[in-house]
Amino acid sequence: MKRLFSSVTDRTKSSIIRELLKLINRQGVISFAGGLPAPDTFPVALIQSIIADLLKTNAVTALQYGPTSGLEEFRHELCLMLRAREGLDISADNIIVTASSQQGLDLISRSFIDKGDRIVMELPSYIGAIQVFHSYGADMIGIKSDGEGIDTGHLEKVLARYGKRTKLMYVVPDFQNPSGLTMSVERRSRLVALAEKYGMLIVEDSPYRQLRFEGTAPEMIHRIAGSDNVISLFTFSKTLAPGFRLGYIVASKKITGAMTIIKQSMDLCTSPFNQLIAMEFIRRGYYDAHIDLIINKYRNKRDVMLESLEKFMPRTEGLYWTRPEGGLFLWVVLPEYIDADRMFYQAIEKNVAYVIGSAFHCNNKGRNTFRMNFSYSSEDEIQEGIKRLAQVVRSNIR
Amino acid sequence: MKRLFSSVTDRTKSSIIRELLKLINRQGVISFAGGLPAPDTFPVALIQSIIADLLKTNAVTALQYGPTSGLEEFRHELCLMLRAREGLDISADNIIVTASSQQGLDLISRSFIDKGDRIVMELPSYIGAIQVFHSYGADMIGIKSDGEGIDTGHLEKVLARYGKRTKLMYVVPDFQNPSGLTMSVERRSRLVALAEKYGMLIVEDSPYRQLRFEGTAPEMIHRIAGSDNVISLFTFSKTLAPGFRLGYIVASKKITGAMTIIKQSMDLCTSPFNQLIAMEFIRRGYYDAHIDLIINKYRNKRDVMLESLEKFMPRTEGLYWTRPEGGLFLWVVLPEYIDADRMFYQAIEKNVAYVIGSAFHCNNKGRNTFRMNFSYSSEDEIQEGIKRLAQVVRSNIR
Repeated sequence: MKRLFSSVTDRTKSSIIRELLKLINRQGVISFAGGLPAPDTFPVALIQSIIADLLKTNAVTALQYGPTSGLEEFRHELCLMLRAREGLDISADNIIVTASSQQGLDLISRSFIDKGDRIVMELPSYIGAIQVFHSYGADMIGIKSDGEGIDTGHLEKVLARYGKRTKLMYVVPDFQNPSGLTMSVERRSRLVALAEKYGMLIVEDSPYRQLRFEGTAPEMIHRIAGSDNVISLFTFSKTLAPGFRLGYIVASKKITGAMTIIKQSMDLCTSPFNQLIAMEFIRRGYYDAHIDLIINKYRNKRDVMLESLEKFMPRTEGLYWTRPEGGLFLWVVLPEYIDADRMFYQAIEKNVAYVIGSAFHCNNKGRNTFRMNFSYSSEDEIQEGIKRLAQVVRSNIR
Repeated sequence: MKRLFSSVTDRTKSSIIRELLKLINRQGVISFAGGLPAPDTFPVALIQSIIADLLKTNAVTALQYGPTSGLEEFRHELCLMLRAREGLDISADNIIVTASSQQGLDLISRSFIDKGDRIVMELPSYIGAIQVFHSYGADMIGIKSDGEGIDTGHLEKVLARYGKRTKLMYVVPDFQNPSGLTMSVERRSRLVALAEKYGMLIVEDSPYRQLRFEGTAPEMIHRIAGSDNVISLFTFSKTLAPGFRLGYIVASKKITGAMTIIKQSMDLCTSPFNQLIAMEFIRRGYYDAHIDLIINKYRNKRDVMLESLEKFMPRTEGLYWTRPEGGLFLWVVLPEYIDADRMFYQAIEKNVAYVIGSAFHCNNKGRNTFRMNFSYSSEDEIQEGIKRLAQVVRSNIR
């Protein structure tokens, strides 16, 4: 059997994360580890009414095969939304509908990455992107990042050295997973300039952008640069429901054209049934109202988590956390002498869980960091969970 | 931009088929080219009632993220069905739920195929499999096939020469796409023996097996060999509706374990919403009754197509067609001097369409063949379409 498996299978061994997740599912554990939306935000009644109408008026389109790039009318609706919300100058041909952003990342990898090709990305960055890039044998280079996002000074030095062999710059500019931080408009512009200079593409992964609790959104990188140098990824997982597995890519027509042919061999098409549900959700004006509802809920939860951290966490040099203006996550940095990978097991003993920060580092560093999700747990659970976690941290302080 | 694209993108140029399909969509063309189920078979009212209940009782599971390999209860239900229908000795861990069989083929390719690895397959074979194998850079070897399926004598000679470097044998044993033919039980057993001898895997693609109009089904290859040497693919596209994009793979636990990790980077999970719809469809006993309905409909359509061919087609040496006992397709072979690729344009002129047979040949041959679908068009359209097609064929006969 070993002879038969591909090099991809050889590379993608079961990750430490999968092993850790098994521990988390234990009874009584308050988990800040997942990235799940709060189930009480799912708009069940609205979905019910949409589907009832859909099966009356449009059942054949919903249930039959659809075009590989997505239903024309749905892509048109997505264009209208992106033009209105983000000022993007695009048409339906700039869009490919995908089975969630993860498939989008897979499609981008398949379209651009051969073994050994270079990708630069933030330290830390989204684990699902690291995994899929790794499965294609990409050579990932981590770039320092801070409260304003990716350190473009450091990036420039790296590109001066490796630029010619780098294909993609992968960033999550808004309420980053895992840091919760947002890239400043200056850094975005600098990134665009570097992409142009070195003739490479920016992959702008944007699952959380619409969940802004406060403050002003910097323009999307796609807006600043146009479609020639940027591929943007969006999803309905955080703004409608993950269970539909629905996302979309926005890119130049040259790229969406090539990707459509590749996607055909991946799944022929994304579920037209699920596409029509999301389309109606937007058309009826439910989408905007629903996002307001989610924002209110998650803002409260974030506030409870920040207040609890403030209240329970010990004060010591080198211990701090981020204060996201939106999204689902915040990020905790411990003094360098504390190993968050090892501390995880102590936390589980105390019935509280996080995701180890090293898993988000393509260079395997960041062992004094971890990610906290505030969207899924109830406000009471957040308070209790942070209290438990604070005890664990305290016991590790010198 | 060219510098940035991957070798996969370079390989997967737009196919001739895509260009031909554009012509087919013209007003007035009777198309036997697609592989679409008849939309009047979609069980809309049953789906409506299932979803209404589902959103009342199980909305959170339906709308949240699910396990990468598929919902446990759904996989369990699939096991029960496969044990009852096919006598397979499997458990839920032998199953991975996929976004249709095409994703299943992609997942198999990703798990086993590196550039240059060998796959043997029937001549002709499923175009979607040829495309995805090609995108991975597989070296495909076509094996002659006849009314009993793949020619195991020819296969044995090929394996004696290339066996050590061959990883997979890809077959569609029941009502093959495109030929409509079914592999005999003797050939199945021989295939299994060869797979064991050469230590390779059989990929048994089985989208149509349950649509048998008459005659007795030979045992599944998976039943004959067990899970150690066989990966089987199933789909709900032909037995419920393609719009849900739902299929599943049955394989050894070692394989499903490895595939689950790879699938995580492809899409995290397949839509739990769509899985629960299919699960309820089976649990309520709708599935079996619905298949009977489809069988009756498609049997009639096949009969009309066969009668029309009999009635309108000219008699000449070398012109014949298959008589499938189930499925969606039949296969026409022309005298060798007629080029079906060129005749396609004449057919379109007469407002009738097929798929050129060369597209189903991994060795680019078969230019005197074409595939006909009988599930989608109405009985009247079938009669009229065959009449038109017969005129075109007649005009090409020497």
